[in-house]
This record gives sequence, structure tokens and C-alpha cells, in this order.
Amino acid sequence: MRIDVMTIFPDMMSPLNQSMIGKAQEKGLVELNTFDFRNYAQNKQRHVDDMPYGGGQGMLIMPQPIFSCYDAIPKISENPRVILLDPAGELFSQSKAEELSKEEQLIFICGHYEGYDERIKELVTDELSIGDFILTGGEMAANIIIDATVRLIPDVLGRAVSHEDDSFSSGLLEYPQYTRPEDFQGMKVPEVLMSGHHENIRKWRLRESLKKTLERRPDLIEKKVLDSEEALILNELKSELESFRDKPLNKNNLEF
Amino acid sequence: MRIDVMTIFPDMMSPLNQSMIGKAQEKGLVELNTFDFRNYAQNKQRHVDDMPYGGGQGMLIMPQPIFSCYDAIPKISENPRVILLDPAGELFSQSKAEELSKEEQLIFICGHYEGYDERIKELVTDELSIGDFILTGGEMAANIIIDATVRLIPDVLGRAVSHEDDSFSSGLLEYPQYTRPEDFQGMKVPEVLMSGHHENIRKWRLRESLKKTLERRPDLIEKKVLDSEEALILNELKSELESFRDKPLNKNNLEF
Repeated sequence: MRIDVMTIFPDMMSPLNQSMIGKAQEKGLVELNTFDFRNYAQNKQRHVDDMPYGGGQGMLIMPQPIFSCYDAIPKISENPRVILLDPAGELFSQSKAEELSKEEQLIFICGHYEGYDERIKELVTDELSIGDFILTGGEMAANIIIDATVRLIPDVLGRAVSHEDDSFSSGLLEYPQYTRPEDFQGMKVPEVLMSGHHENIRKWRLRESLKKTLERRPDLIEKKVLDSEEALILNELKSELESFRDKPLNKNNLEF
Repeated sequence: MRIDVMTIFPDMMSPLNQSMIGKAQEKGLVELNTFDFRNYAQNKQRHVDDMPYGGGQGMLIMPQPIFSCYDAIPKISENPRVILLDPAGELFSQSKAEELSKEEQLIFICGHYEGYDERIKELVTDELSIGDFILTGGEMAANIIIDATVRLIPDVLGRAVSHEDDSFSSGLLEYPQYTRPEDFQGMKVPEVLMSGHHENIRKWRLRESLKKTLERRPDLIEKKVLDSEEALILNELKSELESFRDKPLNKNNLEF
């Protein structure tokens, strides 16, 4: 996959040279390029921003540097996905990452300052947001999307890691995990995990996954197609919760 | 504000030295420190991860390096917020950014590999997620939270920029914006924005904000307390939409 990032802060993309995404570049699975669109500004001062028509605070990215920079990017795909980071865009999700991971080329446009000229959207195939919060620019959001996407490309994750057990890929949140030591400052690993009894471990993990998802993300439970074992455990968990709620308030259950 | 990031990839926090957050550090409004918890591992090979009890793929961060590293961080606040990045955590939002921006000290724990030992949560005050997608580690998510939070600290954003007009702070998505030139490759700036008629410009922008929010994020409209002008425009937009939907399909409205 070829990834091109249009940004006036190319150094902000440097986290992608680290860790697994860095290794994916070394292996030749991904080619990452940054394009500083300030170099394409057709004015003496190389300004990329100007004041908004109609008044208002802040500066906007002008269309000219973006269009000229876009034209300079080699296209290896007939219809590259051109992604604009925008808090008003479609919410990025794991399924969008899976979709993007199948593309040959992704081009990102990272705004900065207050915003950008609306006409820039003529180039754009996808307006994406990573959440309901405001960032100083699009670069960090592009990092997130690239990281989540590239790790799904075959052979990027080595043998030591995998994404099959990830939160969300099973439709449930992940169960609690423990590693050495067995006893750390008096905090112990649950006994079942050291029993060597695979079936009991599997059941414990499924129950913990369902419990955590029910408590924190009931929306995920509603979306999931449950098998008969999951449905049975979920009913047990729900009735435990209800019987708890029915008890009168006292010292012992105030902490719930 | 003092910010401490516990990570085995300290270079992944380098985007925070750029742009506005970099300037906030230069101005002394924020002090950012990274702590490589590998340096606190009490074993010869400086391993920070080990295999999960009960079996399973991947490696988990061990509790010892995290607890020892945490102890080494100077605490300037009696109860610092200790934030663990976790896809199963509470969803980060603009209101959480506002809450965090009032703290004296934030400490971030960035996991990597498959996950971490559950006992690490004993140190944690906030488990946060930035969205329903999986990243290779917590560093990029920490960058996002720090960026969104620090820009809300008084005096971080200069005169040239502001966050009053941001998407979300008004409860609506932002209206389209335009800057020079008036005509770019045949694409023109809407006339009203060049009219100099402030009241018409204000009304056009409010209408465009409401329209965009209604189309893309009806959930935000439902949450918002509308004033009488907004309610009136919204009713107009809804009846336009409905009268449109009632028309039989033909060439002219297939493009809607």
C-alpha cells in the first residue's frame, strides 16, 4: 500500500516510523510519503492560509496549495481514496479500517488552523472524524487511521501478535489478562487461569468478556449475534445484576 | 500542567513538540515528560512483557515495570489523574478534554503488544478509549488526548485562533468556510459571504450549520437546546427535506 500525507507539519507523522508500522515500511509492505503543501503555494511568502470571506476568527487553508500538491502526488491507483480529516466527517471505526486496508493507495489531507476552504472537498472521497473532540490539526488523526489500517494488512503483524483476539473483532470487549508474577504485591492471578483446565479457562474468559461488555458497552451486546452459550451466560449475568438491584440499600452494596 | 507519559516508545510522543502544543511547552504552560518503563524492569534482559496465564496469543505488559516507573514519577498533585489507554475504556470526548484541562498533573500509561496485566489498573483513575478501533499501542491515543486537552488550557491558543467557533462547542457542526480566491478553477465563493451584510452572513452560516448537522449528526440536534431562531430554521429544513422525499424519483432528484 502507498500512503501519501499532505501536511505542513510532516514531522508529526514520525510515530509511523516506530514500532510495527515502522517495521511494515522496512518490510516494504507499506510506503509512506509526506508532502508539505507549503512547498506548492504559488505566492512569494509561501502562505497556505488566508482570512475567511464573510468574517470570523482564524485562518483557513487556501485551495491552491492543496490542489497543486495533490496534482504532484504520483497516483498508483486509478481512483485513490482521498481522506480529509474533519470533526464533521464520518466516524472512523474498525470496519472502516478493514475497508481501507484493502486499498492500493490512500492520500490524506491534514488541515490545520481554524479550517479549510470548502472547495478542497472537490478532491475528497472520504471525510473522516476519529471522534467528538477538537484537535489542533489533522495530523494526529491521520496517524490513528493509518495505524489502525496498516496493522490489518496481511503480514504486517508478526507471529508474536495477532488481531483475532482484539476487542471489537469478536464483538465483545476483551477479558482481563494476567502475566507473571503469580503474586504481585499481594495481588494474585485468578486461580482458574493457572489450573491448566482449558475448557474452564475458555468459559471464565467468555463470561468475563460478556460481563465487561454488558457493564460498559451494552450497545455492543445489542449489535452482536449471540450463540446459545453466550445467550445463556448473558441471562445469568443479567439476573445476578437484577437480584442485586432488588436488595435494599445497605453498607455492603453501596459500593456497587 | 505537568504531563507524564509512560511508554516504551517515547519517540512516538514527538508530535507534541510541534505546532501549538510545542509552543505551549516553550511558553511554560505545559511540561511534558516521557518515562521509558523498560528502564524500570527488574530483570537482566529488561523485558517488560511476558506470556498470558491460561494461554493465548501475544505478550502482556508485566505489572512490575509499570509500578516501579509510576513510583519514580514526581507527583506535583496529591491525586494525579492516571490515564490508561484501553479500547474498552470510557469514550474520550470534548467534555472529558475540558475536565482534564483543569488538572495539575496527568499521567498516561501506554500499553503495547496484545495488552497488559489486569493488576496495572490498581494505579489507574481513568480508563479511556478514543474510539471503536484497534491501534498498535496507546501512544497515538495519548497524543490525541493530550492535544485536545492542552489546547483548552488558557493562553495556549494565541490570538490568531480560538476554540469558540469549533464544531461541538456550539453543539452544531461548523458551516462551510471560504477564503481567497473568489473564483478557483471555476468554483466560486457563495455571494452572500462577499456581500458585507453581516446579518445575512450570520443567518446563512446558522442555516448551513443546522443543515449539515441535521444531515450528518441528527444525534447532536437531539441533544441541543435550540433557541427560537434555530428551531424555526430547523423546521424549514425538515419540511424541505420531507417535500423532497414525497416527490417521485426522477433524474433531477436522484443526485440528492
